[in-house]
Order: sequence, then structure tokens, then C-alpha cells
Amino acid sequence: MKDTTTVYQHGTLAMLVVGLFEGTLPVSELMKHGDTGIGTANDFDGELVIVDGTVYQVVESGEVKVLAPDDKIPFASVHFHQSRPAVTINNTNGVELEHQLENNYQFGNSFVGINIQGAFKRMHTRVVPKQSKPYPKLSAAIKVQPKFSQENVTGTIVGYYAPFLFQGATVGGFHLHFINDAHDFGGHILDFEIDQAEVEVQPLENLLQHLPINDKNFQAANLNLQNMNEEIESAEH
Amino acid sequence: MKDTTTVYQHGTLAMLVVGLFEGTLPVSELMKHGDTGIGTANDFDGELVIVDGTVYQVVESGEVKVLAPDDKIPFASVHFHQSRPAVTINNTNGVELEHQLENNYQFGNSFVGINIQGAFKRMHTRVVPKQSKPYPKLSAAIKVQPKFSQENVTGTIVGYYAPFLFQGATVGGFHLHFINDAHDFGGHILDFEIDQAEVEVQPLENLLQHLPINDKNFQAANLNLQNMNEEIESAEH
Repeated sequence: MKDTTTVYQHGTLAMLVVGLFEGTLPVSELMKHGDTGIGTANDFDGELVIVDGTVYQVVESGEVKVLAPDDKIPFASVHFHQSRPAVTINNTNGVELEHQLENNYQFGNSFVGINIQGAFKRMHTRVVPKQSKPYPKLSAAIKVQPKFSQENVTGTIVGYYAPFLFQGATVGGFHLHFINDAHDFGGHILDFEIDQAEVEVQPLENLLQHLPINDKNFQAANLNLQNMNEEIESAEH
Repeated sequence: MKDTTTVYQHGTLAMLVVGLFEGTLPVSELMKHGDTGIGTANDFDGELVIVDGTVYQVVESGEVKVLAPDDKIPFASVHFHQSRPAVTINNTNGVELEHQLENNYQFGNSFVGINIQGAFKRMHTRVVPKQSKPYPKLSAAIKVQPKFSQENVTGTIVGYYAPFLFQGATVGGFHLHFINDAHDFGGHILDFEIDQAEVEVQPLENLLQHLPINDKNFQAANLNLQNMNEEIESAEH
């Protein structure tokens, strides 16, 4: 039976902060731990949106590809989506929705899977650009990031709320990606306006954090960062 | 087959910092995830040392008890100990040994299980005192802590090295407890001198972090602490 109470994460946000962008886990391994989630690809090449077991990769041109089982990823979070009674939301923007969810569910200290399907008046995303070796640090890698916007688009928001205690290992607070139903538009969400959407909130009592402990670059990296929070805030929000 | 690559943790150090000392997981559940580890008991009642599947509880009187399967614990870390080639160490103290391990194994970014069996010239421990409701915060709870010392004692050190990135969720760096072979002396280790001991270092590629997400006190707690690191440093070292 599939474990629907655990979010599995390969790699950490701290690894991206110092420029460990090389893939360290094959997609085939990642998918043993979930069918739904978010992440980035080898070489920090774009935004991953994982829906129904398919790993969509939105790259900096805006194009959407699908990763193969052998492709390796440096950082991703997945869980098995468990359908549950959805709440229908109308005419709300992203900021209001997040406040509403936090107030209704009291999940501030927990990991939560977020799944929002529906019609959006506007969806605004960005996509990290592919890097090459020697990799720069995150702050340099994201100085120029293409942004994309669509109006009247149907699709799925996938992502997580994570407790701020785990900031650095992952993104504290909400971290949401989008893929449209046509599978030709998506990315890391900057903001959005809902026309009508079904919101599912899946409490996750476990974080299974996997680290590439035999990777030489991982072993040698200095991940005890002083200004981690500032770097993450400017990078992810 | 037992998973010997994962450290399972119930609760977080941050929960102890704010005074969440009530047990939230039965020992029987904890032991599904390991036979070796450390932790504390319900009401913050002493230091747990888990060896070969037995949960020893060193209480503030210095007495050693054994927890029952139904006893609940607020915070503990366990893993399945996998015997591996041990390194024999002679005439070393705790500080030197930790430096030696860090230099030899390059495990600064990884979770590692530590198991040290042998003869100690001196072992110096402390034990947190049992609290009652309404619970104080950690800093108040540990103002007075009984300390214990024995010379020429044989026994087992059990504990972990954890990456500093996870400080707050757990104790960053080394966190070691001791139980002697007679099972009548132990606690949280302050310092020690090895006569001769066998040191085993078990790399753990996964942290399985479990949270009591349905516990009302956990839900309501403010775990986004500003001075978390300072509180932990003064509490655990």
C-alpha cells in the first residue's frame, strides 16, 4: 500500500544555495516515493512539476518537456497524492488563499501537500535558467530568470507548506509550482488569481530526507551557511 | 529486511525548547524504526539510551529503569545498528575522538550513527530532571541538572552526528549518551576518557522525521524560534 503520509525529499535547498546543481538521484528512484511533487533538474535546468507520476520540466524558454527515468535530479520533493474532499474556492488571489489555508488548517508546524486544480484568471511564473560547470552559487544563477504569464488558463498547482524550522533543508512556508492542462506552460509560481478551483490539503506526518552521502561534491561542500535564511528568502520568494 | 540506512526521529529539539515534554509516541511504535538510539521520556524524565532494542531510562536520581512498550516519549532518535569493522581506540578523550572521527570520515554534511563499546577511564554525564505541568521552557527545566561520574567503567556510547543544517530539528554535531554494562549508570555525556574502545561509525543516508501533527499542543506551539541556536547550544553542550 502506498504511504500517503510522507513527503520524500532528495537533496536540500542548502545544496542549491552553494551551487550543487548536478543530478544525484535518477527519476526512477524518486518516483518510488511519490507521484506528485516539485523540484529542479540536472544543471538546475528549470522547474519540475510532478503530477500523476509524470515529471514535467519547464525550461527557461518556457517550453515543457518530460524527464525520463534515467535523468538525474539534484533536488525534489514528492509524495503520494491521496484524493480527499476538496474545498471549492472562487475569485481569490494567491496571497489571500495562503492566509485562508493557514487560518483554516492550523498546519504551521507540519508538512502539508497542496493540490489545486481549476481555472485561473491569471498565472504568473518564473523559471530558473540552466547552468553549466563550474556552477555558480544560487544567488548568481538566479540573477536573470525568465518570467511567464497566462490569462484564463486551466491547470494544476502542486507544492508544499513546510514548517520554518526546516528552512534551509527545504523552503519554509509555501512553495508552489504550476503546470497547465495543455502541458505547455508552467513554472515556479510568483502569483495567481483563481477563477474557480478545487483545493486539497494533505497533512504529511513524516519528512523522509534523503542525502547523496557518497557524492564527493556533497561531502566537501560547506553547508553550514550563516546567511542561509536571507539567501533563501531572496531566491524563493 | 531491516533498513540500516535511516535514522528515525520522533519530535524535534525545537519542541523541547518550548516545553512540549509530554510523550506523543509509544515506545512500541518507536522500536519499529530501530534498536539503537537516544531520547528523553514523558515529562522530560531523564535520558534514554537504546541498546539492542532495550530502552534504558537514566533518571535524575542516577537510577536506571527500562521503559515499557506503552510508555510514550516526546523526542527520540533510533536506527537499526549494523555491525561493521570497528576501529580500536586507546587513551583518548571525547574531544580528541570527535576531532579524529570528523577528520577521518568527512561526514560533516551527513547523519551518522555512533557506537562505542569498551573500557573508559572516566565517564561524566548529566541527566535532565523530570518536569510537571504546566511545563516550563527548556532553559528553565535544565537550570539544575544532576551530574554523575564513574572511573574505570565498561559500557556503550550511543548517539549521532547530525549536520548543522538540521540544528533545531535535532542537535547539530555530536549528541552522545552512555549506559554502562551493569545497567546502573549512564546519561547524556559531558566528557569521557577512553582506556580502550571499539568505535563504529554507521553512515545514514536518510532522516525520517516524524511529527505529532494531530497533537493540539504541537499544533498550537510557536516553533519558529529566533534564538533557537543559542538556546540549543547552552542546553545540549
